[in-house]
Amino acid sequence: MTSTAVQGRPLDGLRAIRFDDDGLHLLDQRLLPREVRWVRCATAAEAAAAITDMVVRGAPAIAITAAYGLALAARRGDDLAAARAVLAASRPTAVNLRWALERLDGVAPAALEAEARAIHAEDLAINRALGDHGADRFAGDGPVTVYTHCNTGALATGGWGTALGVVRSLAARGRPVHTFAGETRPYLQGARLTAWELQHDGLDVTLVVDSAAASVLPRCDAVLVGCDRVAANGDAANKIGTLGLAVLARHAGVPFYVCMPTSTLDTRCATGADIPIETRARDEVLGHRGVVWAADVPVFNPAFDVTPADLISGWITEDGPWSPPPRA
Amino acid sequence: MTSTAVQGRPLDGLRAIRFDDDGLHLLDQRLLPREVRWVRCATAAEAAAAITDMVVRGAPAIAITAAYGLALAARRGDDLAAARAVLAASRPTAVNLRWALERLDGVAPAALEAEARAIHAEDLAINRALGDHGADRFAGDGPVTVYTHCNTGALATGGWGTALGVVRSLAARGRPVHTFAGETRPYLQGARLTAWELQHDGLDVTLVVDSAAASVLPRCDAVLVGCDRVAANGDAANKIGTLGLAVLARHAGVPFYVCMPTSTLDTRCATGADIPIETRARDEVLGHRGVVWAADVPVFNPAFDVTPADLISGWITEDGPWSPPPRA
Repeated sequence: MTSTAVQGRPLDGLRAIRFDDDGLHLLDQRLLPREVRWVRCATAAEAAAAITDMVVRGAPAIAITAAYGLALAARRGDDLAAARAVLAASRPTAVNLRWALERLDGVAPAALEAEARAIHAEDLAINRALGDHGADRFAGDGPVTVYTHCNTGALATGGWGTALGVVRSLAARGRPVHTFAGETRPYLQGARLTAWELQHDGLDVTLVVDSAAASVLPRCDAVLVGCDRVAANGDAANKIGTLGLAVLARHAGVPFYVCMPTSTLDTRCATGADIPIETRARDEVLGHRGVVWAADVPVFNPAFDVTPADLISGWITEDGPWSPPPRA
Repeated sequence: MTSTAVQGRPLDGLRAIRFDDDGLHLLDQRLLPREVRWVRCATAAEAAAAITDMVVRGAPAIAITAAYGLALAARRGDDLAAARAVLAASRPTAVNLRWALERLDGVAPAALEAEARAIHAEDLAINRALGDHGADRFAGDGPVTVYTHCNTGALATGGWGTALGVVRSLAARGRPVHTFAGETRPYLQGARLTAWELQHDGLDVTLVVDSAAASVLPRCDAVLVGCDRVAANGDAANKIGTLGLAVLARHAGVPFYVCMPTSTLDTRCATGADIPIETRARDEVLGHRGVVWAADVPVFNPAFDVTPADLISGWITEDGPWSPPPRA
């Protein structure tokens, strides 16, 4: 991997993944927002390392990176089975990554690059369609103010984003959009990534601490969040803090939309109670980036929470609105 | 001011203010929890500097510090009018500080030390009485789990604390008490002070990010918060995040108690709409202690929010429960 400070800014907004004759280029998300640097991967092993080392994050972005990694192996004439194995092992729990590699199984080596590009283009098209359906929810042509959580943007996907894709689609229609970004403790994706990404694309953003949400929601037209997994009944697992936002939005009378590519629907989970909640390391809460500020006490650090379907005003997909089947 | 690493731990719990023949001793809250150091003040000017420099924080603790500062001047035979002036200027907006100095006006120099000790003792007695009335709200003799926000403990008062005083009173009655402490972004009083203070006194505490409140409230018997000011109708201004907790508590069916020394009632404010909300500096949100992690974007950083009376299950004072007068 080589790292350079070249910055790309396509006309239609930020891209964090590029593939060209020089190889695979990834915007290094570990350094944002302090430094805008691209990492170049020339081999499948380098692409796998970029996934493991968190140069790239977000389920769709990881899947696209793995697909391009296999295309790099094909381009070089490397052993494809070995390349596939190293990519599959780079983030063993990532469902989208496994899906992308399975889709490439059996594709002829000469066709792998085109298929990887198709996976990327399809993700971008899904996000654009989702964004447009989301934008349809905002009647009229006046200014819109939304609240969002975590990072669901071009940095996490093939481009455009899901919840931030709705913001981009509104802006593309000429609507003035203002986004309140919750900082998203403990990992601060809102402060580090969402704030940077919106500013990069010239979109209005104001950063708040997560607990200021109750104070700003009365000024918002909607809450827009992404999701990690949606159960068959519509319950949605997403970044810790999402459930609280849904309760506050209901109290404030503000619509709460879950932006949900249809690939996120997991019909094997009947309800949110079937979705396991990962608990993460204590040091994420005790400080940040090596600076410890908290007392040395026990910590409870759930990575996700589950928002019950009855607190969700709408599920927005690339195919339009989705709804869980009516209860029997 | 001289600073030493001697640690006091009275049998009935943490004290952050001590007065003896050597002078006034303040537990340095700027260094907690990394370092437990006491600052010794020998003059009124040193006490004033300790207030200005945030060695001590919390309205009651500041008032007690100022009273002892004047007693130091009397003990040394310094000019009392000059000492009073420097203490009054140490934190111009602190209402309790002004109240303490006014109470000492006209007290004979030889009696100032006793009166300062009385102010300290009265604050402690108020907190103990408040804590006991709060503990009465928890029926039975089984374990209790509470959620709290910011720091309302011995570190902010003459001892015992207000919301944390209820926790101490429960523990003093032999009830097993477990406290979830919200970290309280942006200034992290929960992570830095409440977590340390409860652990110091051997009380069970678990630290969570503020946005995990919705996930842990269903396991809690009550939310206990302090308040900066309560309007005549019961609306309560307190640290940013309090309003959101009140909404989440209502949703979870968990009682939400405001711990309110009667001195906090401001009958000049008819409702919470009359309470001004201070907006603080952007750098508090962009990072912590010189480490900047966020993108360089606009920030909205309100220091407080106002919880409407109808979301408050009870107001706990040193005189027992308080309620706003019924609406006309």
